[in-house]
Amino acid sequence: MSKLIVYSGGMDSTVLLYRYAGDITLAVSFDYDSKHNEREIEYARLNTEKLNIEHLVVRIDFVGKYFSSHLLKTGGDIPEGHYTDPVMKQTVVPFRNGIMLSIACGLAESRKLKSVLIANHTGDHPIYPDCRGDFIKAMGEAMHHGTYINVQLESPFLSMNKRDVALLGKEAGVDFSLTWSCYKGGESHCGRCGTCIERKEALDGFDPTIYEQTEVRK
Amino acid sequence: MSKLIVYSGGMDSTVLLYRYAGDITLAVSFDYDSKHNEREIEYARLNTEKLNIEHLVVRIDFVGKYFSSHLLKTGGDIPEGHYTDPVMKQTVVPFRNGIMLSIACGLAESRKLKSVLIANHTGDHPIYPDCRGDFIKAMGEAMHHGTYINVQLESPFLSMNKRDVALLGKEAGVDFSLTWSCYKGGESHCGRCGTCIERKEALDGFDPTIYEQTEVRK
Repeated sequence: MSKLIVYSGGMDSTVLLYRYAGDITLAVSFDYDSKHNEREIEYARLNTEKLNIEHLVVRIDFVGKYFSSHLLKTGGDIPEGHYTDPVMKQTVVPFRNGIMLSIACGLAESRKLKSVLIANHTGDHPIYPDCRGDFIKAMGEAMHHGTYINVQLESPFLSMNKRDVALLGKEAGVDFSLTWSCYKGGESHCGRCGTCIERKEALDGFDPTIYEQTEVRK
Repeated sequence: MSKLIVYSGGMDSTVLLYRYAGDITLAVSFDYDSKHNEREIEYARLNTEKLNIEHLVVRIDFVGKYFSSHLLKTGGDIPEGHYTDPVMKQTVVPFRNGIMLSIACGLAESRKLKSVLIANHTGDHPIYPDCRGDFIKAMGEAMHHGTYINVQLESPFLSMNKRDVALLGKEAGVDFSLTWSCYKGGESHCGRCGTCIERKEALDGFDPTIYEQTEVRK
């Protein structure tokens, strides 16, 4: 016990939640007005209830108001294609992990929780600078030096790919039908956006997801 | 041009605002439900108007809701005594600079502003861990690595004391009657809390502030 997890309700952070469930005191989700926030947070609520872990949803409305990204309700359409395609840069929310980790760190110090968990992995590295090792290392040092209890940042999936994270989750008994990836945030996963394609690749062989469109258009 | 300043309306960040006015595109204040926020932000508005600099007030209500600190409206009384007294630890808002700098960094990347200015100085170091050199260095690296434009963190007063900052401000023509320090946030500066005492020492000889009580009680 004594860890706080930054928990979106996506598949990676759900795997992390299940792997560390016994040590997690508080799961924190952020509502930042992304197109898929409601969907993600719904699943975050379900999984934390299942595991009997306290769940806090922190609303940060300044992102939707002042930031520009296609991921946001205020932004343009979600691009289709592979998760690592350069066009996916449109979905970057500037310094999102920095912001979420800082708030998580302040909450951790307020509650005397010594560690903050985050589920970034190598699949995030090509497009999202605030998921890479250099960022995580520096941010961890900032959190350590900037608090009285020297809050520690843990990123156990940093050197793993999404397939390996999925396999870990399978082993831990994660029900992936209770996780959300699609950036479009519709009724079901679209099956065509970068995150849906990445999700399909990672869950290949044990994917319970119902996609709107599973075939490539001819 | 192309700098963003984290600007409270206190005397240190007002000196920084005046020193770098020609290079500052955006001044950002944070309303985090501290007892003195309204007072500070009122002066922040006045000074940015005077200098014709865009001013954004970002409300972050999660601090007041979930964090514990005597500085907040939800917290206990502001302690009296010197700014560097251990009792002043009650006024720490956990990882406040980390949170403000992260949001500033995301805003800077959104607006393509390459640099973020902050006015921490050596007087802050004994009590506030997220004002010290180790934190600033690590946070600057996190901001650099976590953004596409490699946002830079500048902390020009890091090795200066508050008296030196005040002298710089005097030279730059800062009207210190248009800055706010008192943590109590009353009608006028109380003259007894840690920040008031620190302010008096720094402005000694050219202090325009009207304090509620300027004499030590007998």
